[in-house]
Amino acid sequence: MSHYPGTERERRIPWKVLQTTVAGIFQACSMSGEDAGLLAETLVQADLRGCHSHGVLRVPEYVLKLKEGGVDPAGKPLVAHDAKAASVVDGGNSMGQIASSFAMREAIRRAREYNLALAAVRGSNHCGAMAYYAMLALPEDMIGIAATNALPTMAPWGGVDKILGINPLAVAIPAGQEDPIVLDAAFSGSSHGKIRVYHQKGESIPSDWAFDADGRPTTDPAEAITGLLQPIGGYKGTGLALVTGILSTLLSGASYGTELGNMVDGPQPGRDGHFYLAVKISAFVDLSEFKGRVDGIIRQIRNGRKAPNLDRIYAPGGLEAETERRYRREGIPLNGATLEGISRSAEALGVDGSAIRGESPVEMR
Amino acid sequence: MSHYPGTERERRIPWKVLQTTVAGIFQACSMSGEDAGLLAETLVQADLRGCHSHGVLRVPEYVLKLKEGGVDPAGKPLVAHDAKAASVVDGGNSMGQIASSFAMREAIRRAREYNLALAAVRGSNHCGAMAYYAMLALPEDMIGIAATNALPTMAPWGGVDKILGINPLAVAIPAGQEDPIVLDAAFSGSSHGKIRVYHQKGESIPSDWAFDADGRPTTDPAEAITGLLQPIGGYKGTGLALVTGILSTLLSGASYGTELGNMVDGPQPGRDGHFYLAVKISAFVDLSEFKGRVDGIIRQIRNGRKAPNLDRIYAPGGLEAETERRYRREGIPLNGATLEGISRSAEALGVDGSAIRGESPVEMR
Repeated sequence: MSHYPGTERERRIPWKVLQTTVAGIFQACSMSGEDAGLLAETLVQADLRGCHSHGVLRVPEYVLKLKEGGVDPAGKPLVAHDAKAASVVDGGNSMGQIASSFAMREAIRRAREYNLALAAVRGSNHCGAMAYYAMLALPEDMIGIAATNALPTMAPWGGVDKILGINPLAVAIPAGQEDPIVLDAAFSGSSHGKIRVYHQKGESIPSDWAFDADGRPTTDPAEAITGLLQPIGGYKGTGLALVTGILSTLLSGASYGTELGNMVDGPQPGRDGHFYLAVKISAFVDLSEFKGRVDGIIRQIRNGRKAPNLDRIYAPGGLEAETERRYRREGIPLNGATLEGISRSAEALGVDGSAIRGESPVEMR
Repeated sequence: MSHYPGTERERRIPWKVLQTTVAGIFQACSMSGEDAGLLAETLVQADLRGCHSHGVLRVPEYVLKLKEGGVDPAGKPLVAHDAKAASVVDGGNSMGQIASSFAMREAIRRAREYNLALAAVRGSNHCGAMAYYAMLALPEDMIGIAATNALPTMAPWGGVDKILGINPLAVAIPAGQEDPIVLDAAFSGSSHGKIRVYHQKGESIPSDWAFDADGRPTTDPAEAITGLLQPIGGYKGTGLALVTGILSTLLSGASYGTELGNMVDGPQPGRDGHFYLAVKISAFVDLSEFKGRVDGIIRQIRNGRKAPNLDRIYAPGGLEAETERRYRREGIPLNGATLEGISRSAEALGVDGSAIRGESPVEMR
């Protein structure tokens, strides 16, 4: 989970209030109540887990997609082709969250029968944080693996052309008494969003975040923005991003990399692709034994010796689960710019945004 | 592919001579002719592809495993449990290469019927380079994904206990006219073997390769050897290694991480685990269209602008395929220590090693 400075001083919005308001906004963009609720839930879940970069911060951008960007608010995903453990889902140019939830549920349904199943998605759009879809497998006692194509922001190792996405991968593994293991990571050292924050603040960036336009490491965020993101682990990161991008697009006929668009003009609507795999644990081993062993691995990490100045270490997803419990109780801290963006979107669409603006008594203290 | 300095000045051994000699050595360790041939082939393939760290350099270590290490030279893998697209393979304490080839072929066989299939392996041992197994899917027009558990050499992010393996992952994707995409990467910045070479030469290591025993980055190879390998991308690399390790062991009941052993005492025989997934492309999309698009992605990389001083850039597996063609023609360059190790193993087992020692006329010039 990324660290966002100053979070603890921000206003706290109860998650239900946030979700209701955001769902109202998307419904006012001609999405069905059900789809608008699902889209809002995926964003609020990201905020609850401390992943604000993929949370309700995105509302204005998504409104734009729905109103002017060519994404179909009434788009309905469907199974375009199915063959036992394999299926191809066409998102029907719906919001990526609608297509992705449908596809992961399709993979889960097929995994109940075939013990593992893969849904390859085309006809989709930006789908937010991948953890949401991987985690849909958890209540089914399955392992969920989710991946997506992304607009190109990296170069292949040794190159300088911006033709490779950071193509994130999420894996969710059920535990017994412990929080599940949930990994959600892109194959770059940092993200465009983070570098923009440093640029706004006039601060230099670490030397392993970005390259300038000629492929040289840079600590200047302005050069980084016109340059390239650095992969994690050099050629390993670009290789992992490449295969993740191929798995997320070529199995369904979605647009890969530069075919999808670029960071300046944005993606072409209805051309994105994703990869959703569900694995039924009990088809392989005894479920409770599996979960007990996952608990053991998580405890071994937690109880291990720590680096100086660290009180606590977590398995992937542990900190996020703790954060979610706290934010569900105490409200989600959101910065002024995010709240302002939601509030303006609500106003423009004639939706009641008073709870977000702090004019309502439901705000938590 | 790792760079090995001085390779071009080394003696060149024809691959067939190498494979025959090495197979003879393993047969003299009571392996069947078929199994010994397969094991030799996996090692020679690694050398052919320039991955000498997982090639015939390992012969003396493998002989030790077979003669004294408790690995069963006559061990036979079997399908312990199967359920449609899912299967559990018990390696029967065979060499990991025997268990792994069997398991990947089982996954491929099931993927012909269910369109994807996963074989989870237990009862196995060290299986060498993962690319070999992922690549078994290529002639079947399938995507192969192979992963394994490894002895712990890293700490979880923020920790200092050596409880996490670098758990490599390989992905093979068929192309049309281009070489296939073959990625094979562990989630550490470097390897113990490489650091040992720097130690022998008295050279310092880059600061992102290792931590000392207290978890601080070190450039001293001696500190690194008693310390920890660094992951790629910080918490991302440790997270990826963790989920890869779990997928490779907990679905079959194999030993995870520290359960398997440690770098000082080595692994317990017959306890290792792996993960083999095969995906039938034509169940999702038209095969020739898929391959044509992979060709396009590879060409886009090759034809892109390069960083200063680079003539050529490759998609993953491209350099390895080129190396393999050259080494098949010109012989495999092997250093004196590797040839000496094979020669001594041959002598101790009463196998004819004259071709390796350069006493035979078949040596290429």
